[in-house]
Amino acid sequence: MTVNENNQTLPAREALLKTRVRISKYVHLTPVMTSRGIDRICSAAIFFKCENFQRTGSFKFRGALNAIMNLADAEKRQGVITHSSGNFAQALALASREQGIQATVIMPATASRVKRTATEGYGASVVECGSTLDEREATLRDIAEETSAVFIHPSNQFDVILGQSTAAQEFINNFPQLDFLLAPVGGGGLIAGTALAAYYLSPETEVLGAEPFGADDAYQSLKAGEIIPCKNPRTIADGLKTSLGDKNFPIIQALVKNIIRVEENEIFQAMQLVWERLKIVIEPSSAVALAAVIRRRDQFTGKKVGIILSGGNVDLNQLPF
Amino acid sequence: MTVNENNQTLPAREALLKTRVRISKYVHLTPVMTSRGIDRICSAAIFFKCENFQRTGSFKFRGALNAIMNLADAEKRQGVITHSSGNFAQALALASREQGIQATVIMPATASRVKRTATEGYGASVVECGSTLDEREATLRDIAEETSAVFIHPSNQFDVILGQSTAAQEFINNFPQLDFLLAPVGGGGLIAGTALAAYYLSPETEVLGAEPFGADDAYQSLKAGEIIPCKNPRTIADGLKTSLGDKNFPIIQALVKNIIRVEENEIFQAMQLVWERLKIVIEPSSAVALAAVIRRRDQFTGKKVGIILSGGNVDLNQLPF
Repeated sequence: MTVNENNQTLPAREALLKTRVRISKYVHLTPVMTSRGIDRICSAAIFFKCENFQRTGSFKFRGALNAIMNLADAEKRQGVITHSSGNFAQALALASREQGIQATVIMPATASRVKRTATEGYGASVVECGSTLDEREATLRDIAEETSAVFIHPSNQFDVILGQSTAAQEFINNFPQLDFLLAPVGGGGLIAGTALAAYYLSPETEVLGAEPFGADDAYQSLKAGEIIPCKNPRTIADGLKTSLGDKNFPIIQALVKNIIRVEENEIFQAMQLVWERLKIVIEPSSAVALAAVIRRRDQFTGKKVGIILSGGNVDLNQLPF
Repeated sequence: MTVNENNQTLPAREALLKTRVRISKYVHLTPVMTSRGIDRICSAAIFFKCENFQRTGSFKFRGALNAIMNLADAEKRQGVITHSSGNFAQALALASREQGIQATVIMPATASRVKRTATEGYGASVVECGSTLDEREATLRDIAEETSAVFIHPSNQFDVILGQSTAAQEFINNFPQLDFLLAPVGGGGLIAGTALAAYYLSPETEVLGAEPFGADDAYQSLKAGEIIPCKNPRTIADGLKTSLGDKNFPIIQALVKNIIRVEENEIFQAMQLVWERLKIVIEPSSAVALAAVIRRRDQFTGKKVGIILSGGNVDLNQLPF
């Protein structure tokens, strides 16, 4: 950790760069795509960092892998455990398998078939729990006690945040002139990592978060100056229903200028636009940042705008189209 | 045209290479994607040439552009006309606009909203016709007489076939060791161009066509030794309902070893597999070649197999999932 000129305590530049080197052999250097049609609609030059093409179908693999690679040998032998209804489950499962570690994932019984099958397919044990946060944490405590497995948090852990920063690090390396960089805000790991990468590697790039009105806890938290948990979220962007944590919130407070909120129909339309124009499969959470750019078009006119498309894990049998 | 050692008359090697140079500045050099999951399912190494990322969303742009670039100046002033319910319409529209030429497209009233909107968006005039081939051709004759526009056939014209060959030319250039190369068979332009590219540039690669049982006119034509038109086709792969022509059929007869036919549910499953694993949007016609590899798994075990994913223009409001 470093204390900067504004007296903010942040993970150090060196830690970001080392993380990228550490995991680069195992993660995909995902492509950046563009679309003349989308640029025309936005009156801006939009660059999409395609983490839907990341291993396990989302950026979460980066953070999961980094956390696991940083474990001590004794910890590795104990195995790891997490709770996730979605992308972090698959990410931790594959990262664990590749590093020869046993993984257990606590998953609500309501989790999507596709994500549960994929998680088990990567060799993790899945334990079902109730759908509330309390039920989830109770199940987690029970199993962690039984197994002494090491808990890896999906978003509120420095190793994980540093891992997520590598998407923006790659992005900035290949597109050094971005005026803006947007990412969706769920648990806060991606936006915190993205903000750190821009802060150290491209300080002239303004980092913005994007969130559904129906799950605007990050917006509310920044406004209140303290973490406001995400209560009763209502959004199609199911990856963004989680709350910020004590590790990522200070980073977000220090480095993220603003959170743009969008309506459900705007998310839906942005998602359809990406599928139709870029011909790629993204999940609703990934469409939130593009929806924000379209909603606030005037702010981005004529600018170079980077958007992190966070993932592509959708259940094709439950599409909103 | 060249006559080869087997006394077959074929477009010359030189013509293919010149075509690639001619259009390369204007077409996307599309990426090749792979998936460990799909390789495991097929017990083979599958390489997907992603023409869904081609301009206008399909390989058709290659042939349309080449045909237009080869027109004499006097012909260019007369404008061009074609009939197409789908991808060739958009391809000719954009290619014409970029070359400063007026394009007219005869399109059945039943054509999909997305494709018609895109065609008009590229600046072409769309004229509606009835849905049978006879009605379509009658409308075409009427308008061609009025306007003296030059007719460009979507698949049965050497310029178009040579244009389509550039997808396989790029593919072979980057992946020179393919044991097999598969493409779907609709009007025959893509498979003929693909077969020519392999014949000249990678003769050890075996070229195979893929077709739905419900539109197996190419299979029937090869068996009969003459063109059997596609009558009452029934398939989700709407791009493959057209018939072979007198320009592409002799090439296919000379160079394509076999046409593999697949069932509708196999097309559907292969399409879903590509969407889920590669995270890309392909249209049903594009899934037919992968369906063929999965159906005939034994033939491809342990081999390097190239598949041309022909396009990604689907109406998201009418998905089969």
